[in-house]
Amino acid sequence: MSYVMYNESIIPKEEAAISFDDRGYYFGDGIYEVIRVYNGKLFLQEGHLERFQDSASKLDLTVPCSPDTMKSLLRRLIEKNGLTTGYVYFQLTRGIQARDHLYQRGTAPVLTGFTKASEVPFAKQADGINVYATEDIRWLRCDIKTINLLGNVLAKRAAEDHDCAEALQHRGEVITEGSSTNAFIVKDETVITHPQSNYILEGITKRYVLQLAKQLNIPVEQRPFTIDEAIQADEMFMTSTSIEIVPVRSIKGSFQAEYGNDPVTKELLGEFRREVELFESGDTQPLVTYN
Amino acid sequence: MSYVMYNESIIPKEEAAISFDDRGYYFGDGIYEVIRVYNGKLFLQEGHLERFQDSASKLDLTVPCSPDTMKSLLRRLIEKNGLTTGYVYFQLTRGIQARDHLYQRGTAPVLTGFTKASEVPFAKQADGINVYATEDIRWLRCDIKTINLLGNVLAKRAAEDHDCAEALQHRGEVITEGSSTNAFIVKDETVITHPQSNYILEGITKRYVLQLAKQLNIPVEQRPFTIDEAIQADEMFMTSTSIEIVPVRSIKGSFQAEYGNDPVTKELLGEFRREVELFESGDTQPLVTYN
Repeated sequence: MSYVMYNESIIPKEEAAISFDDRGYYFGDGIYEVIRVYNGKLFLQEGHLERFQDSASKLDLTVPCSPDTMKSLLRRLIEKNGLTTGYVYFQLTRGIQARDHLYQRGTAPVLTGFTKASEVPFAKQADGINVYATEDIRWLRCDIKTINLLGNVLAKRAAEDHDCAEALQHRGEVITEGSSTNAFIVKDETVITHPQSNYILEGITKRYVLQLAKQLNIPVEQRPFTIDEAIQADEMFMTSTSIEIVPVRSIKGSFQAEYGNDPVTKELLGEFRREVELFESGDTQPLVTYN
Repeated sequence: MSYVMYNESIIPKEEAAISFDDRGYYFGDGIYEVIRVYNGKLFLQEGHLERFQDSASKLDLTVPCSPDTMKSLLRRLIEKNGLTTGYVYFQLTRGIQARDHLYQRGTAPVLTGFTKASEVPFAKQADGINVYATEDIRWLRCDIKTINLLGNVLAKRAAEDHDCAEALQHRGEVITEGSSTNAFIVKDETVITHPQSNYILEGITKRYVLQLAKQLNIPVEQRPFTIDEAIQADEMFMTSTSIEIVPVRSIKGSFQAEYGNDPVTKELLGEFRREVELFESGDTQPLVTYN
């Protein structure tokens, strides 16, 4: 049997249902997070919970329980489902109100969540992926991790329809991010990635990778980079909670590029995997801050 | 007892629930429509159903039943709830799938709907409203009537927080539309409104008002107009399915304006109300096309 979270209860999934009048269903009025689980433990949970709080604040939403209660709920959900490797997903909507664009403050929000078993994609990490470049048509608050995800959904579907594992969005000449990943290029051994701004969702994995780069003395530039720079780059890679670090082999769609050897990406991935293995064996608890 | 629609069934609301895995709840992956009901009858239903089909096509969604079946379902819902004056809301999501940005084609979509009693806002039509000007931060496919409505929701809340009944969004210097209304100005007896494009949701009421203007020999220009033109305008009004035509008294927020007499707005509203009264008494069936 599979269990899900509904508010502060862990219940069998078949007993769970969403209210007809949940603002998540009428307006996509809510936020979410995904945290990686390795060996049954939450990876980089502090950063994810800080970002969750940040998204809530930006949308005038109140997280109904403390970070400690959240961690405890997520741990119970993971235990109930016997999850070892995978992720936990949770979302918070503005709650149940008769449908009206104008939300009323003070309504109890609705917290839900589930777990999913999901192995680390070692083959993709070794072989790389192809990505599909497409214009970024999303709203101007991509820094909030909301469930208004249609732009991302359309980009992901377009990528798959062109035999690509992920989309690569660009706003005019500037590359922003993937549909559920952050994008990086490497030029002359420097790692370049879009800075935190309203145009991208600042990834917790992105933050962690930049921290690893610093430890490894790999220079980093956080600045907008262009299509032309991506074409001229030595390497490109994508990061996310579920894929960790995956090199890009080729880009198609609105522009084309191909990449060969990827020594910097491999170095970062090697370090990332070592840290995860230490975490799995209980020797380290890596920390990344969001605020 | 209140009844709602769930797929092709009309059921008591307390028996209705949304699946935990409905893509509407995870991604806002769906579309909707609102049709005015006068004297128990659907007003301008053809235009609304055409737009519903158009939104579905643009999102690679399939409406699960014919326009005739839709009309019959909506009529049954209205009858069951004994609705006289108000509106019927219905939405269609991409259906129930394990959460993944990448949707699978061929999944049965989920159709839901409800009715709401709602009088014509005669006081607002007579007195006018204040609107709150705010930057339009929405995505670049506002022409699709999706349930990804966070930008609209935030604009509406900001308006209310500044004692305004509606928001007035502008993308840079160009005024686009309200949070759930279309915007019009009148200058030298010409009605000016943003043309159908990816920046606005083309209103069925907007279309109908433009049709009435033509009948009344009022010149119309469908072109983007600026903040400066709004400030210099003689009149301003907003339209929507629920408010019909409402004059704007003043604008505050990112810019300010005030309006006095509104003879053109009143002429259009007068004609609109006459048409509705004829419709209510069963003498006419006004038609507006969307495609």
